Amino acid sequence: MVVKSQIRLIKSLQQKKYRNEHGLFVVEGIKVIKELLSTDMQVAELYCSDAKFRGMHTPNGILGVFHIPKPSKIHFSDWILVLDSVRDPGNLGTIIRLADWYGIEHVVCSPDTVDAYNPKVLQATMGSIARINITYTDLVPFLSGNPLPIYGTYMTGTSVYTIAMPKKGILILGNEANGISNNVNLIAQQKISIPQYGEQTAESLNVAMATGILLSELRRK
Amino acid sequence: MVVKSQIRLIKSLQQKKYRNEHGLFVVEGIKVIKELLSTDMQVAELYCSDAKFRGMHTPNGILGVFHIPKPSKIHFSDWILVLDSVRDPGNLGTIIRLADWYGIEHVVCSPDTVDAYNPKVLQATMGSIARINITYTDLVPFLSGNPLPIYGTYMTGTSVYTIAMPKKGILILGNEANGISNNVNLIAQQKISIPQYGEQTAESLNVAMATGILLSELRRK
Repeated sequence: MVVKSQIRLIKSLQQKKYRNEHGLFVVEGIKVIKELLSTDMQVAELYCSDAKFRGMHTPNGILGVFHIPKPSKIHFSDWILVLDSVRDPGNLGTIIRLADWYGIEHVVCSPDTVDAYNPKVLQATMGSIARINITYTDLVPFLSGNPLPIYGTYMTGTSVYTIAMPKKGILILGNEANGISNNVNLIAQQKISIPQYGEQTAESLNVAMATGILLSELRRK
Repeated sequence: MVVKSQIRLIKSLQQKKYRNEHGLFVVEGIKVIKELLSTDMQVAELYCSDAKFRGMHTPNGILGVFHIPKPSKIHFSDWILVLDSVRDPGNLGTIIRLADWYGIEHVVCSPDTVDAYNPKVLQATMGSIARINITYTDLVPFLSGNPLPIYGTYMTGTSVYTIAMPKKGILILGNEANGISNNVNLIAQQKISIPQYGEQTAESLNVAMATGILLSELRRK
């Protein structure tokens, strides 16, 4: 039986503040829950949901509460993806899936990047959330202390098709509207871009699309 | 003054059937309307919308009715994008923007691909809709009669990173759930894929993302 305090807890986990306080997050839907159960992700509770969970989607009537994994130590042995203030949950979810597809182990997010355990992000990541090591940290100290070359993505950087990219490095993607922030700009050693082939009037590529195209470039070599 | 018959017409244009009957489509929002007005797209009417257009979004209170352009003749002088039953409006909108970004002139869609003048597609394409020649036609006769090599995208094709792609050809992307249809399968001469680098459990790439990565591959060479 589901008691009132459990319902209250589950509802509170819709908010980042309470997810961080309890170290827990909620997912809904049999498909993604089954996928998470087959990974290292630690389950706290499973519920067959019913009318008690009003206001949540509960597709397929199942709901899982999982422990937010502690970020593991970052190894600087491959490309690392850094997100500077990516705000749209769908974009972050897609980027996490892309990291999974292209075998990128570490995604490092600025503190103001949307929370990866936000329900909308989880919906877009599918099971990939369990396979990527996601760390929220201040980017300036992280980047300053890292041993790899740092590539920032800009509208007006050098074409990624014309420069030789190394086997490992840091790839930074910025905010949907404003790009990479000023403090991080100063640290990005190389400014790269995806060149436009059509008329210059075309709307810029979405940040998740740019991530996909850039990860493809990094891996194809 | 907006009369009742105009309101009825505009509301009817939310449906494909009436868009095709009248040869007209509706867009909302100052930004995209301004962009369309700066292109060859022919405007039929502009309205400063008010409460009369209940049930529509009308951001910024402006609404434009444009003529659906007649598809122009297809030149087989570059890569042509072919969509076989792409159903999601957001995916089609993103694909049209990508075609614009990568300078692809012609997008050929199966008749069951979502209508490009659907309001949700327009929202995702921005002004790119005016710069791409979009043709709806039966794919089998179109493909059978074309002079270019035909590449179909599959989960299990040859890695696009390992094969030399020609300077021009046909690139086919299939349905979100079922991929390329059986009849079109028979005509696709080369089966290509975007290889996966992470664990094989990663969810497959979305069709719009796959289009972006493949167009990048075609243009970088």
